[in-house]
Amino acid sequence: MVRLNDNFLRLQKNYLFVEVAKRVVCYKEEHPDAPVIRLGIGDVTRPLAPAVIEALHKAVDEQAVAETFRGYGPEQGYAFLRRTIVENDYLPRGVKIDEDEVFINDGAKSDTGNFGDILGNDNSLLITDPVYPVYLDSNIMAGRAGDNSGQVWGRVVFAPCTAENGFVPSLPTEPVDMIYLCYPNNPTGTVLSREELTKWVDYALRTGSLILYDAAYATYIRHDGIPQSIFEIEGARRCAVEFRSYSKTAGFTGLRCGYTVVPKEVTAMTVDGRREALNPLWNRRQSTKFNGTPYIVQRAAEAVYSQEGKKQVQETIDYYMENAAVICEGLSAAGLRFFGGEDAPYIWVHVPVGQTSWGYWEELLRRYNIVSTPGEGFGRCGEGYVRFTAFGSREDCIEAMRRLRNK
Amino acid sequence: MVRLNDNFLRLQKNYLFVEVAKRVVCYKEEHPDAPVIRLGIGDVTRPLAPAVIEALHKAVDEQAVAETFRGYGPEQGYAFLRRTIVENDYLPRGVKIDEDEVFINDGAKSDTGNFGDILGNDNSLLITDPVYPVYLDSNIMAGRAGDNSGQVWGRVVFAPCTAENGFVPSLPTEPVDMIYLCYPNNPTGTVLSREELTKWVDYALRTGSLILYDAAYATYIRHDGIPQSIFEIEGARRCAVEFRSYSKTAGFTGLRCGYTVVPKEVTAMTVDGRREALNPLWNRRQSTKFNGTPYIVQRAAEAVYSQEGKKQVQETIDYYMENAAVICEGLSAAGLRFFGGEDAPYIWVHVPVGQTSWGYWEELLRRYNIVSTPGEGFGRCGEGYVRFTAFGSREDCIEAMRRLRNK
Repeated sequence: MVRLNDNFLRLQKNYLFVEVAKRVVCYKEEHPDAPVIRLGIGDVTRPLAPAVIEALHKAVDEQAVAETFRGYGPEQGYAFLRRTIVENDYLPRGVKIDEDEVFINDGAKSDTGNFGDILGNDNSLLITDPVYPVYLDSNIMAGRAGDNSGQVWGRVVFAPCTAENGFVPSLPTEPVDMIYLCYPNNPTGTVLSREELTKWVDYALRTGSLILYDAAYATYIRHDGIPQSIFEIEGARRCAVEFRSYSKTAGFTGLRCGYTVVPKEVTAMTVDGRREALNPLWNRRQSTKFNGTPYIVQRAAEAVYSQEGKKQVQETIDYYMENAAVICEGLSAAGLRFFGGEDAPYIWVHVPVGQTSWGYWEELLRRYNIVSTPGEGFGRCGEGYVRFTAFGSREDCIEAMRRLRNK
Repeated sequence: MVRLNDNFLRLQKNYLFVEVAKRVVCYKEEHPDAPVIRLGIGDVTRPLAPAVIEALHKAVDEQAVAETFRGYGPEQGYAFLRRTIVENDYLPRGVKIDEDEVFINDGAKSDTGNFGDILGNDNSLLITDPVYPVYLDSNIMAGRAGDNSGQVWGRVVFAPCTAENGFVPSLPTEPVDMIYLCYPNNPTGTVLSREELTKWVDYALRTGSLILYDAAYATYIRHDGIPQSIFEIEGARRCAVEFRSYSKTAGFTGLRCGYTVVPKEVTAMTVDGRREALNPLWNRRQSTKFNGTPYIVQRAAEAVYSQEGKKQVQETIDYYMENAAVICEGLSAAGLRFFGGEDAPYIWVHVPVGQTSWGYWEELLRRYNIVSTPGEGFGRCGEGYVRFTAFGSREDCIEAMRRLRNK
């Protein structure tokens, strides 16, 4: 008799974005003419860069002819892309990464979810609160979260990130084995300084824990001195893996490409107390349960780093960050308190006194026809906030802020 | 202190095809001028069909303009492709599948590997021998294979498929919970008749086990009456999931697309003895740990079913099956015994008396400059065989057989 992985039954039934979409559809049915503006979801809206489009067409043409056709590629990704990443994303920042430490994937969501495959299910976790739901859910699925009561899980330490602590999580007072950090942060839009990130690396080195560092929004950092990669911190090669993505960097949300860096020095402990390197194990996992990212998509990712590609992609990032500036300015004028939006495409808005996350979400929709995301959906410390994103059109951002100012 | 998933240390060091590739590279370095013909790996060599290329270009152009740009798609795949699959791969064979029972993926390897995520790690397995290594390795990784001594695993029942039983596995005499079947079979190239497959479905229904049916080579079946889908068998909707792929069907090995069918009736048992439907759990797994197949790739898969696409794709399948005929004829002339090659692109060759699998593999490489795959790499019952594939060029197949005949 086949048995279920019962851990799946412990997951929350309600899906945040599904619930948001459902409520918006309901409102639109009641008010078909309402000029609703969507500042909620984290999907990009600008098209792919011309250099990326050109690379795609060229690669598609190669697949049309036997002489240049490419079938199975290396599960780890093509050398041309791994090399380009090392040379562009790491070397200029003084970070030395070997090509075989870079694993190309179909987006950071898969690998942040799958990386637990190679780690023991008895590890305890630290997760910031609020948080991108995949870190928690994928660990609940693996049975790694322990017993639950409400939103509390036996083997999960939640590190609150609130206005009170400046959205800087404190080091845990009890031991943890796996630490998820995402900076620039989704959903709060805040960053960690070099000094703060160094504290986490030192903690991990001291305790033998592993940092799973999600740097999907690294290219949105504008202030000098903020680390784009955890490997800019001394010692991180011995205690961290890093996830990167082209989704927000280059508008690849529908094209699907990212990468994971697993340094050769990073290890985990075996049952008999030895340290074993994770790089060959991740390689084995990917070789067995993944068949590589499409060749044409890897050529598209490579084009992001061409001279033209860099310029075009930067223009789009600038466009989104000008949106963020428009939103921040509008929120200030409207007298709302907010965070983020400077080094990240997310703005974390404190709801007016006496309101709840979902309550203000409803008010934004009904009174201003603006769709946001209720902070409570990202964790208990998200209560009292809504998230705006800068991925919409300029016109929509301006109009939404006009409505808020003229309340 | 972060701990490893020690099950990974139980895996054989090298994935079979990596080992084969390594040995070939070695040989080529020693003999740079050797006219090596690769009949080993199951990768296609013909380019993508013109209809697929056209659909790719069109979809790429849509991604270049804000009005038609598509970002995140549904994790389960776009409705246009799910509908097309239902209407083309199932309805004409009298099988009714709902669109929301079809999950688009990036190839069957990922899903055959990942599907275990939603099943308990205490399930016992039945795996045919020889077998595609992913079924066993992904279960070893999950700790589901039990203790091992040599190639024997405590919770895995191996069902031998040999010349003696006509490559038809026998039903197990001890209870098993998860049953992996792959037909047309990789590596033996043999098929299961409707009568034989019905025995397995009846067994699964009687015992409450789950059949994981890999039908990646379904479109290679030429004989009438051989089931292309397990859902052609009465009752299979209650006990089976099916994996399909465009890799061999339409040359998508480098483009990456396939799908998994999870009928709503198929269930697994919870710890407290209830039956829970797998379809919503697989949906939740994919929504959390996968972000969908690229939009442009899904448009390419859709084009496989267009009038032109069907014709072009069939021409390529015919080409490969004519290769198979060339190989079968050559092997006969060379006095070698073999199986498969009629309803599958694989030919399973009995090695000459007194030889081993790897020994004959080396002889084929060194004496004839032909790369095959050693049968022993697919399991103990693969000892005494090598696998040829029909995916090469016609010229290579003819030349390889000429060499064998003139030995």
